[in-house]
Amino acid sequence: MQHFTTSAIQQWERFYRANLINSLSGFKSASLIATVNKDGLPNVAIFSNIVHIGADPALIGFINRPREAAPHTITNIEATKVYTINSIHASFIDKAHQTSAKYAESESEFEATGLTPLYRPAIKAPFVAESKIQYALELKEIVPVTYNNTFLVIGAITDIFLEEGLIMKDGFIAAEQAHTIATLGIDGYYEPVRLQRFAYAKKDKPVSTLDR
Amino acid sequence: MQHFTTSAIQQWERFYRANLINSLSGFKSASLIATVNKDGLPNVAIFSNIVHIGADPALIGFINRPREAAPHTITNIEATKVYTINSIHASFIDKAHQTSAKYAESESEFEATGLTPLYRPAIKAPFVAESKIQYALELKEIVPVTYNNTFLVIGAITDIFLEEGLIMKDGFIAAEQAHTIATLGIDGYYEPVRLQRFAYAKKDKPVSTLDR
Repeated sequence: MQHFTTSAIQQWERFYRANLINSLSGFKSASLIATVNKDGLPNVAIFSNIVHIGADPALIGFINRPREAAPHTITNIEATKVYTINSIHASFIDKAHQTSAKYAESESEFEATGLTPLYRPAIKAPFVAESKIQYALELKEIVPVTYNNTFLVIGAITDIFLEEGLIMKDGFIAAEQAHTIATLGIDGYYEPVRLQRFAYAKKDKPVSTLDR
Repeated sequence: MQHFTTSAIQQWERFYRANLINSLSGFKSASLIATVNKDGLPNVAIFSNIVHIGADPALIGFINRPREAAPHTITNIEATKVYTINSIHASFIDKAHQTSAKYAESESEFEATGLTPLYRPAIKAPFVAESKIQYALELKEIVPVTYNNTFLVIGAITDIFLEEGLIMKDGFIAAEQAHTIATLGIDGYYEPVRLQRFAYAKKDKPVSTLDR
């Protein structure tokens, strides 16, 4: 096997290191986080560092990069306490990727990329109309990661919107039926194909598949 | 679209809610985290809430559930400060899933599941020999998420071991060549197929693909 140590990692060229370290942990979800600023101007950006924190209460976290690198989403969430997370499908990965360009606060990435904002009653932040899995969150906690000036932003899920037919009998969302994508590294987009679902694992019992 | 509110989410049956909320955020990486306890006894368990925190310094985080639900990995990391994260491939998803069963601290999940511990000089925690992407970490910070008693465990990458041939010229790891899997929900295993890599997005420039 190839072996790299801390000093090798530090000596890599910046983009080489970013590509390698970002793809090391494997496939990730990528979603569009949409917000409005204090004046109601919409913002949407792709995030791939979203993490499930708990199901009861239903909590989702994401890592926001340092403020100087990625100021808009976190500032808007602090101002309004509300944001939406929206799935990305194979049909619009180009538009989703384009939201990662640096736009000014006064520019709407919806307009720039051709994605469609969808406003719903009593939820201040827009959804992404093209997404088949959408949910709204209320800010609960912003935990600073002092070690590198990033933030773990934690929200409670307040509303879920799903295209009809995606939920299986046991609650599992068959995201692949909507051609939902996964990402790898900073620029790789993938479509996952289901291999298997397994039953709850028990000690001294062989693994068994779920037939659903 | 189907619409569910907070009160609907709270009223769902426990496993239905766990399935739905865990699959809501989309595809995730799943990896095996291996540790040893203070007496050197090995432990390995599957984790799907792993998050990239930064490339320079190279930092990876994962969410550890509340101590009463998942005590061994976090206790071992606190005791030894060292752990490894190991990729999962389609050929052994059954063994990887089986590590999620509740074993006693005195039992090695390596022995119980048939995965092979691989010890390397100067790294106290074992790797998983079957994994083609392996890295060792040194504990940097355990951030308590007070809202639901989980923990964000942050480590710095000290050593990377990769099967020959996986790294592309620009540092990107072609994880799909090793049949690395993604997960969905708590029990779904998927094999991602590459759609596209895009160039770094720039304002006022159309999205372009990377041809590699």
